[in-house]
Amino acid sequence: MKELIAELEFDIRFSETDAMGVVWHGNYLKYFEDGREAFAKKHGMSYLEIHSHHYFVPIVKSEINHKSPIYYGQRAKIITKMIPSKAAKIIFEYEIINLSTQLISAKGRTIQVFLREKSRELELQFPTFYLDWEKKVGVKK
Amino acid sequence: MKELIAELEFDIRFSETDAMGVVWHGNYLKYFEDGREAFAKKHGMSYLEIHSHHYFVPIVKSEINHKSPIYYGQRAKIITKMIPSKAAKIIFEYEIINLSTQLISAKGRTIQVFLREKSRELELQFPTFYLDWEKKVGVKK
Amino acid sequence: MKELIAELEFDIRFSETDAMGVVWHGNYLKYFEDGREAFAKKHGMSYLEIHSHHYFVPIVKSEINHKSPIYYGQRAKIITKMIPSKAAKIIFEYEIINLSTQLISAKGRTIQVFLREKSRELELQFPTFYLDWEKKVGVKK
Amino acid sequence: MKELIAELEFDIRFSETDAMGVVWHGNYLKYFEDGREAFAKKHGMSYLEIHSHHYFVPIVKSEINHKSPIYYGQRAKIITKMIPSKAAKIIFEYEIINLSTQLISAKGRTIQVFLREKSRELELQFPTFYLDWEKKVGVKK
Repeated sequence: MKELIAELEFDIRFSETDAMGVVWHGNYLKYFEDGREAFAKKHGMSYLEIHSHHYFVPIVKSEINHKSPIYYGQRAKIITKMIPSKAAKIIFEYEIINLSTQLISAKGRTIQVFLREKSRELELQFPTFYLDWEKKVGVKK
Repeated sequence: MKELIAELEFDIRFSETDAMGVVWHGNYLKYFEDGREAFAKKHGMSYLEIHSHHYFVPIVKSEINHKSPIYYGQRAKIITKMIPSKAAKIIFEYEIINLSTQLISAKGRTIQVFLREKSRELELQFPTFYLDWEKKVGVKK
Repeated sequence: MKELIAELEFDIRFSETDAMGVVWHGNYLKYFEDGREAFAKKHGMSYLEIHSHHYFVPIVKSEINHKSPIYYGQRAKIITKMIPSKAAKIIFEYEIINLSTQLISAKGRTIQVFLREKSRELELQFPTFYLDWEKKVGVKK
Repeated sequence: MKELIAELEFDIRFSETDAMGVVWHGNYLKYFEDGREAFAKKHGMSYLEIHSHHYFVPIVKSEINHKSPIYYGQRAKIITKMIPSKAAKIIFEYEIINLSTQLISAKGRTIQVFLREKSRELELQFPTFYLDWEKKVGVKK
C-alpha cells in the first residue's frame, strides 16, 4: 500500500528557543501544524478546503516524544504521515529529524475530528467530500 | 486630572524566555495585552464589551523600548495608562518594571482604532457607547 | 496516601486564541507549564532550585486530550498532580477545567527526566537533593 | 548607493492567527526576526557569527505600523532593509506585503545594540569584526 507522506525542511526560529538554549518543547506542536500544512499542499484537503465544506477539524489528542534537542542555528525536517482510520478521525504521525546531527529529535501523533461549523457538533461519520478525497489519493483501510 | 491607570504583577513564563536566557523581546506585546486586560477589569470597556457593540479595536501601531532584561524566575509589574485622544483612537502607554531588580525593563505604547465588525471598515468618530464610558470614568481631553 | 496537587485559576489571553475563536491547542502546554510553576510554588522544587543543583529537567513526553474548547473571555483552572515514579522521572498529570462552563477542557500528562547541566547526560537515578525533597513532602512510591 | 535588502516569502501559520481571524499583531515581530535571518543568509553576519565574537545584539527598540490584516491561508512577503548607522547600532526597516491582496500589511523598524556576552555591558563602538563586514558588503554611512 502506498504511504501518504509529506516532508518539510525548516530552520529554527530564535523566538522558538528557551533559556535552556534549545527549542521549547511546546513549539513542536507548531512544527506538527507545519507538517500538516505541507501534507495538504502535496496531497490536498487543506483546512480551508475542509472549512469550505462547513467543517472544522480540531485536534482532540496530541502526543510528543522528545528524543534529542534542537539548538538555534540548526536545521530540521518533519515527516508527516497519514494513518488510515476507520472511525471518522484524521490521524497523523510525525517524525522530526535534526538535520545538523541526523538524530531523531521527536516523534508524535495527533488526532482530529470533524465538527460541524455552525453547531460545533461532532460528526460521527466521515463527510462525503472527505471520503471522495481519500479514494482519489488512495487511502486504504 | 485623574489618571486612568491599572497595575498588574506577573511571573515570567519559562516558554517566554529565549536562548539568551531572558524574555524574548516580542513577548512584551503579550504583557501589553495583559496590561490592557487588567485595565479593562478595573475600569471597564473590555474587548468583549466592545465586541458586543459590534466593533473590533485592532492594534494599528505598537512600540517597545527595552531598558533592561527580565530573566526567568523574576517577577514583573506592568503599569498601563490610558492617554486621552481627540481622534477616534484608543492609546495606551505601558511601563514594565522588573520587581526583582526594581529597574524599568521596558516602556511602550499602542494605538487601536475602531473597526465595524461586519464590514471591517474604519470608524472615524468615537462610537457613542465609548464616549459614554469615557464620561463615566472621567477621561478628559 | 496524601495526593500532591496544586490548583491555579487563570484568564485566557487573546493572543492564545486562534481563528476558530478558541484557545489554540498547542497553548495548553503553556498552561501545563503554569501548572508546574504553581505546583513548585506550593510544594517546592522549582526549576531554579533544580538548576542550582546543576540539573535540567526537560520534558521528554507530553500528551494532551482535548474534551471541550475554551473561548476568549472565559476563565479556567488547572489542577496539577504529581504521579509518584520509581524510575528517575518527574511525572505530572493535569486537568484543565473551563470555569465558565464547568466542563473539563483537557487532560494531560508530562514526563521529565534529569539531565546533568554541563554534559547534558541523562541521570539514571534520582539525585539525592530530589529524594530528600520527596521524603519531606511525602511522596510515597 | 547600493541598498542592502533581503526578501522572504512565507505562509501564515494557523497558530499565528487570533480570534479576529487574522494574524495576531505581536506575531509580526516573529516575521521581523525571520526577515533578519533571511538578511543574514544573504549578506552574512548571523546571530551565531556575532555570538562567535562574544557579542549579543538584543533588540532595544521595535515599532510596528499595521496597514491591513493578513488572514489564515494567505501568503506574505517581508522585505528587510539595513539602515546605515553612525552610532554602534544595527537598524533594520521592514515592509510586509500580503501577497494575496498585494496590499502592504505592515511597516516596522528595529534597533539592536552590541552587548559583551560575559559582562552584558553595552559596547559603545562598533566591534572591529562588524566594521570589517560592513566594508565588505558595502554599507556606506
